Amino acid sequence: MRIGLDIGGTKTDAVVLDAAGGVLERVRVRTGTGPAEVLDSAERAVREVIALCGTQTDDYASIGVGIPGVVDRETGRVHHAVNLGVDDLGLGERLRERVGVPVQVENDVKAAALGAYHLLRLHGSAAFLNLGTGLAAGIVADGRLWRGARGGAGEIGHIPLDPRGALCSCGQHGCLETIASGSAVARLWPSKAALPAIELFDAADAGDRRAQDVRHALAAGVASAVRILVLTVDVETVVVGGGLSNLGERLLAPVTEVLQGWGRDSPFLASLRLPERVRMLAPDLSAAAVGAALVGAAEAVA
Amino acid sequence: MRIGLDIGGTKTDAVVLDAAGGVLERVRVRTGTGPAEVLDSAERAVREVIALCGTQTDDYASIGVGIPGVVDRETGRVHHAVNLGVDDLGLGERLRERVGVPVQVENDVKAAALGAYHLLRLHGSAAFLNLGTGLAAGIVADGRLWRGARGGAGEIGHIPLDPRGALCSCGQHGCLETIASGSAVARLWPSKAALPAIELFDAADAGDRRAQDVRHALAAGVASAVRILVLTVDVETVVVGGGLSNLGERLLAPVTEVLQGWGRDSPFLASLRLPERVRMLAPDLSAAAVGAALVGAAEAVA
Repeated sequence: MRIGLDIGGTKTDAVVLDAAGGVLERVRVRTGTGPAEVLDSAERAVREVIALCGTQTDDYASIGVGIPGVVDRETGRVHHAVNLGVDDLGLGERLRERVGVPVQVENDVKAAALGAYHLLRLHGSAAFLNLGTGLAAGIVADGRLWRGARGGAGEIGHIPLDPRGALCSCGQHGCLETIASGSAVARLWPSKAALPAIELFDAADAGDRRAQDVRHALAAGVASAVRILVLTVDVETVVVGGGLSNLGERLLAPVTEVLQGWGRDSPFLASLRLPERVRMLAPDLSAAAVGAALVGAAEAVA
Repeated sequence: MRIGLDIGGTKTDAVVLDAAGGVLERVRVRTGTGPAEVLDSAERAVREVIALCGTQTDDYASIGVGIPGVVDRETGRVHHAVNLGVDDLGLGERLRERVGVPVQVENDVKAAALGAYHLLRLHGSAAFLNLGTGLAAGIVADGRLWRGARGGAGEIGHIPLDPRGALCSCGQHGCLETIASGSAVARLWPSKAALPAIELFDAADAGDRRAQDVRHALAAGVASAVRILVLTVDVETVVVGGGLSNLGERLLAPVTEVLQGWGRDSPFLASLRLPERVRMLAPDLSAAAVGAALVGAAEAVA
């Protein structure tokens, strides 16, 4: 059995996988802010999920952790996990000391890519398109994470698509992330609602023209991300996940419409059958935690 | 020993590689137009290079062929090789019948990617950016071609970068190919010169403002292709090849300048060290023919 953790800005998910990769048990705890609290929540999630299974730490060969931020996979150190209030944390080593099980740390989007691939029983190659505060992708080729030469594969959120576009946090203009992400919605549809994207889509459905424009821009941005992933890597499937993917069919429909429109203008693009390649990740699958468990297991074996 | 062919619109290159991958001999013949003539030139190139080595067809385990167009690798059929006047040709089978050696056919850009990787003794992952009439890339990961789910990996020439850009042959607007390719130069710098790109760069050097603008746009397009390849796949190296790469340092310098300018605006982009990752392929390395030989050998073994 192996454990997977997904440490997010507000919650930490933990899952236990059996030898066949099935999810035996899962728990969710609140994530604290700052290094000590993040470590505490991670340990608590591990102990709770182990207890739920009626097991002990000795029964586990590995823990895999998915976490936002820059991860040094060799050492398990995490840098610049801004949402967690963590600038630098030796997460792998500290968690291993506390629970006595080898720990492997991975970027959360990459972990989610592997988890989605596994949970959706995909084959060949796939990309996981994470629409969170930012936009990034994880790429899985023949069942294995494609990290790239320096760990930067999938950073497509910083490909500029419009030289006249908005200034991105990265310093460039018109990046994909300024069009299709939670932060893009926040900029284009300022709102105090708990779920601004839902409010935006409700307003669009109710006939608000500005909301419809923002929704269309968001859908076109997601479609552009799909196009980039297929034209560059030719992944068979693009799984859309992250906060905005909770919109489900409400987001998929306008994205599909944009892709179909492009296909009408371009026989070449039509031949790629992009609409068929896009899938929304169902909420609450704990893809990142499941993927983290798989990363942990793979690295422990290697 | 193995043979590699690169069938281009005007010439067909043939190389013989020894068991260690070294180039023993090479020849170049004129390519005919139309299926029968293309096949004839291929056979002639094979027989000439074999004779130059003082060998016979029996001494060879495989022939690999790189050719522009859509290739069915299973059957060795080639479709839509427009530059060659070939709409449909069972190239693999026909050439095998003629010379009695197993033949494997691959798209020429993909073959060149593998050849460049081998000739430049690269490691890890690399992309070959072909600036021919069109723009496309070949991707090599851990020494193997990444073809993608449906053979379409590297078709980055059809990623639109400017919604207000020129109409592309694919039906979209502002594709990378409309900015950085031989056809883009032909559109932006109409000329009757034998080498319009050389004329363009000479005019720019002589102070022609419009030529300087076109040169800058071309360099920015190449830089954009590099950015897309690194942000999506995170290849360690981007090797620039194809006709425009014969400009060598004259093209590399403005590309490097654009990349450095982006790095000054964006610390994130600067951290990717893009200028260091770009290399120009020296002319006359027969990268596609060498890569084709490697493809032929790999498939024959598999």
